[in-house]
Amino acid sequence: MADSPLVLALAEAAAAGDRGEVPVGAVVVRDGVVLARAGNRVLELRDPTAHAEILALRQAATGLGQSRLDGCDLWVSLEPCPMCAAAIALSHIRRLHFGAYDPKGGGVDHGPRIFDQPTCHHRPEVVGGLAEAECAALLKNFFRDRR
Amino acid sequence: MADSPLVLALAEAAAAGDRGEVPVGAVVVRDGVVLARAGNRVLELRDPTAHAEILALRQAATGLGQSRLDGCDLWVSLEPCPMCAAAIALSHIRRLHFGAYDPKGGGVDHGPRIFDQPTCHHRPEVVGGLAEAECAALLKNFFRDRR
Repeated sequence: MADSPLVLALAEAAAAGDRGEVPVGAVVVRDGVVLARAGNRVLELRDPTAHAEILALRQAATGLGQSRLDGCDLWVSLEPCPMCAAAIALSHIRRLHFGAYDPKGGGVDHGPRIFDQPTCHHRPEVVGGLAEAECAALLKNFFRDRR
Repeated sequence: MADSPLVLALAEAAAAGDRGEVPVGAVVVRDGVVLARAGNRVLELRDPTAHAEILALRQAATGLGQSRLDGCDLWVSLEPCPMCAAAIALSHIRRLHFGAYDPKGGGVDHGPRIFDQPTCHHRPEVVGGLAEAECAALLKNFFRDRR
């Protein structure tokens, strides 16, 4: 996993945790080039939509000067929530890679299973459960330390 | 409906259509005061997440300096998509009022029915189908004119 964009996503997640945010990080890659990387900034920006994935998708799209990210892949440390999963579909992300599964808050393999809906107009390939132990530990330790 | 925030949402929707965007508008209100109003700006901002609702929620939250909008109501000209519906839940919006139903793209009464999911942590009150004919006509005319 050393060269995987997941390492960058995990670093963004850890940095978010250091800022007191729920530790989630996301990276957008196209043709091996990192186009955007972001961590959760909901509290800092006072923005309920400022999840790592949303920030990374916006950064990549504005950077490319286009509202769709065809051919781009997203790497996230945690299973995206329903808002982020739907944003991934709207962005036309080619492939979604994520770390830990999130049975309580996820929207890909749990909850509304956004990409399985007949009304979902774009379905990325999905590879979930990467470095599951490491990604899950990041969150577990964060919430344990705040108790 | 003259004094309804839906009139403002419709005006934002029409202005979005004039800019070449899918005509959807949204307004955030608390205690009778308009905190934010926005139209769709996906193309202009090169941002796949720049739906009217997301922009209005972000504007209201940053304006209030808090990441949740408890006690605030959202008025939208169209049934929110799954991304926006999930953002509404994350924002703790008290009541959602929307105009036309959207069987193809909606996420409230159609598709993933975000608020009906057991994993949805906040369910706003929902009032849908307001000024249905007028709200639906705005969209129909927009897509007819672009054919």
